[in-house]
Amino acid sequence: MGEGADKITFPVIAERAGVNPTTLYRRWDNVNALLEEVAVAALTRDGESAPDTGSLEQDLTEWADIIARDITRPERVRYLRAMVAARAETVSNCPVTETRRDQASEMVRRARERGETAPTASQILDHVIAPLYYHVVFALQVDPEYARRLVRDVLAMVR
Amino acid sequence: MGEGADKITFPVIAERAGVNPTTLYRRWDNVNALLEEVAVAALTRDGESAPDTGSLEQDLTEWADIIARDITRPERVRYLRAMVAARAETVSNCPVTETRRDQASEMVRRARERGETAPTASQILDHVIAPLYYHVVFALQVDPEYARRLVRDVLAMVR
Repeated sequence: MGEGADKITFPVIAERAGVNPTTLYRRWDNVNALLEEVAVAALTRDGESAPDTGSLEQDLTEWADIIARDITRPERVRYLRAMVAARAETVSNCPVTETRRDQASEMVRRARERGETAPTASQILDHVIAPLYYHVVFALQVDPEYARRLVRDVLAMVR
Repeated sequence: MGEGADKITFPVIAERAGVNPTTLYRRWDNVNALLEEVAVAALTRDGESAPDTGSLEQDLTEWADIIARDITRPERVRYLRAMVAARAETVSNCPVTETRRDQASEMVRRARERGETAPTASQILDHVIAPLYYHVVFALQVDPEYARRLVRDVLAMVR
């Protein structure tokens, strides 16, 4: 973790937030748990829902574009790296992934109702979400065209 | 970064390695650069080459299986997380990714010579390598069946 991230401690957060550190200790087991909750809250702000354009390709393209822009913002990159750093043990559920899975499932459900052939929500997570997050955490380039290419690839799997 | 990783400093490494810290400072700009080189050296040990079974599906399946087993070892997980932590700026080339790209390109080249329809090396990186590493750094479960599923998906893109 970078210099700055090492300095994120309960006393530091408490001072900046104007609360007693005890309040934080009571609410979260550790700083990482707090950061994870912050990340999820940020990821799902404004009751974020999946696009509904009437076409799965268009839905996924807009959705991937929103995510690509979102997770490459400096503060989001820091959260994601903090999450990576926080994960000492294997987790069965990642809150970030679950939010994305819900959105993907919703788009797939609507596509199937319209009679479109659709990949599974898991395939969308594996082949659109995972590469985007992989690029961000390993500091590789992410641009809108990359996100669009991932969407085309996942749709090609079921054509 | 976890408690242990914070303690990886040049003086600590120097002591454990029985060399003068100055030697390390001369060779690497910082500990992260050293760790990255260690990771790459470990990843490419024994002059690792891509499988050559005569079938792209079998090559990719064996290759993904080797990688899945390799990157879930505790020491490899620590290296990968250290790499994530070290990447403050966007990098144009990730040595780990480049090693995998070379291997993927080699398997694709042989498949095309045999007349097989093959995805591109980039597609293999995006849809097999990225999800595997994503799972490892976010501490999600990785098992051999998951790796096989990713291979089936990437091959389905070109069928």
